[in-house]
Amino acid sequence: MTNWIDEDLNGVRYGLEGTVVIDEQSPFQRITVIESKRYGKGLLLDGCWMTAEKQERHYHECLVHPALCSASEITKVLVIGGGDGGTARECLRHKGIKHLDMVEIDRRVVELSKMHLPDIGGHAWNDPRLHLHITNGIHWAKNASTNTYNVVIVDGSDPAGPAEGLFNKTFFENCKRILRPGGIFATQSESPEAFKSIHIDTVRLIREVFGYADPLYGWVPMYPSGWWSWTFASVEEASYLNLKENRAKDIAKHCEIWSPRWQKGAFDAIPAFIERELKK
Amino acid sequence: MTNWIDEDLNGVRYGLEGTVVIDEQSPFQRITVIESKRYGKGLLLDGCWMTAEKQERHYHECLVHPALCSASEITKVLVIGGGDGGTARECLRHKGIKHLDMVEIDRRVVELSKMHLPDIGGHAWNDPRLHLHITNGIHWAKNASTNTYNVVIVDGSDPAGPAEGLFNKTFFENCKRILRPGGIFATQSESPEAFKSIHIDTVRLIREVFGYADPLYGWVPMYPSGWWSWTFASVEEASYLNLKENRAKDIAKHCEIWSPRWQKGAFDAIPAFIERELKK
Repeated sequence: MTNWIDEDLNGVRYGLEGTVVIDEQSPFQRITVIESKRYGKGLLLDGCWMTAEKQERHYHECLVHPALCSASEITKVLVIGGGDGGTARECLRHKGIKHLDMVEIDRRVVELSKMHLPDIGGHAWNDPRLHLHITNGIHWAKNASTNTYNVVIVDGSDPAGPAEGLFNKTFFENCKRILRPGGIFATQSESPEAFKSIHIDTVRLIREVFGYADPLYGWVPMYPSGWWSWTFASVEEASYLNLKENRAKDIAKHCEIWSPRWQKGAFDAIPAFIERELKK
Repeated sequence: MTNWIDEDLNGVRYGLEGTVVIDEQSPFQRITVIESKRYGKGLLLDGCWMTAEKQERHYHECLVHPALCSASEITKVLVIGGGDGGTARECLRHKGIKHLDMVEIDRRVVELSKMHLPDIGGHAWNDPRLHLHITNGIHWAKNASTNTYNVVIVDGSDPAGPAEGLFNKTFFENCKRILRPGGIFATQSESPEAFKSIHIDTVRLIREVFGYADPLYGWVPMYPSGWWSWTFASVEEASYLNLKENRAKDIAKHCEIWSPRWQKGAFDAIPAFIERELKK
């Protein structure tokens, strides 16, 4: 008999055929690891699809490279969340990074990812530039010194459970405060279709806090609607739109989805119904 | 108990919660109409999601307007397939169309769509410019006179069952032959993720036949992977890239997804792995 693991949301479900490998409750959330027929091992948190070995690049490349290819410097980078290691891995492809703080609240997500989905973090786990801190990312952003990071990347789950505080004004203000001049802020910003209101509110709030912010649209087939967004922000001007050519060229060679052309398209591919809302 | 209607494909499924309203076998295919909780009434052919009342604009706007906003003239248009009426409806928003031939092989798809999903075809069904022909679209393209249509739009299902012949060289050559100078050809061209090989082969073949062809990428959440493509072609130059400004402005007012900016982005948002394949 076929066994399906599904995420249900408002009368829609997306399922992968496979078997459950691990299903445990951490102090923060329910963590499920599956072995799927189509995409290799997959991870769910509180029953929501997070990533899978053969589908993770859609998400990680699109979150990381628009920020790291456009910041004026990338010496010191902060990643909040991202316990599976994929965001750190994509960051550390950039040779310019000297120090990467990765702040993940849930030790078990890191442990289980290293054990069952080791290719997602890959070399990042052994890279001496990676400094992993198992603690609360909201507190980290509050307590970090002003002008610390060239890039701040938020790789959290939906705004419920442990990721709830990653979608509010105080948090965004702290992210802005700890950015150095010429820095870039990046966050996943939900689906314009399955989470339309959260998406619009998030983009508006980030724009209000930073001054400049734009969503970019791409695809993560396993997320609700398959249609996903990431939002990039900066303070002095919309500098996330301007790639550093050499950095971009080096990175593009290794990418499956991201390219300078793809990125340009993904910023333009804002659907009419969202563009109208954001102009209000 | 929750009742789900799913489409399964290679270890992945997408389901809508709802109830089956109609499930019958026509001479060509199995036709299922459902009432869904999330997207209103929905249509499946041979168990594959085709459309739903509250999700159909993603597909129809993206197939129609890039072609109709860029052809040099749009007096006479051919639609092959599209039995639910959505493509005809979007076409007929264009006041410049004087005559629209719609050629659908399966009378029951039209009848059941008119009965259960009447808003998808909407005013199109009563528009005197619509000429509905229940016959084989492949034969229609073969038998039509050279230089007949300003725009030819193919709105078929996956290349299996009745739509199989809509993905081969002879058919594309006939579509090219019946186009007038300055004309545009448009077709759905599958998912670059769930149907990667078919997608690449289709784009390559259309490019070979017409001389100029490019895929455009968008979202249809209910289709496999949510990530969909449409391919546009022309003969003298890549004229599908150049919108007629006034026509585009009139149409954009009524669109949910499509806009000139969205279209520009959607042509650029080609993922790196497809761009590499198409350059080979």
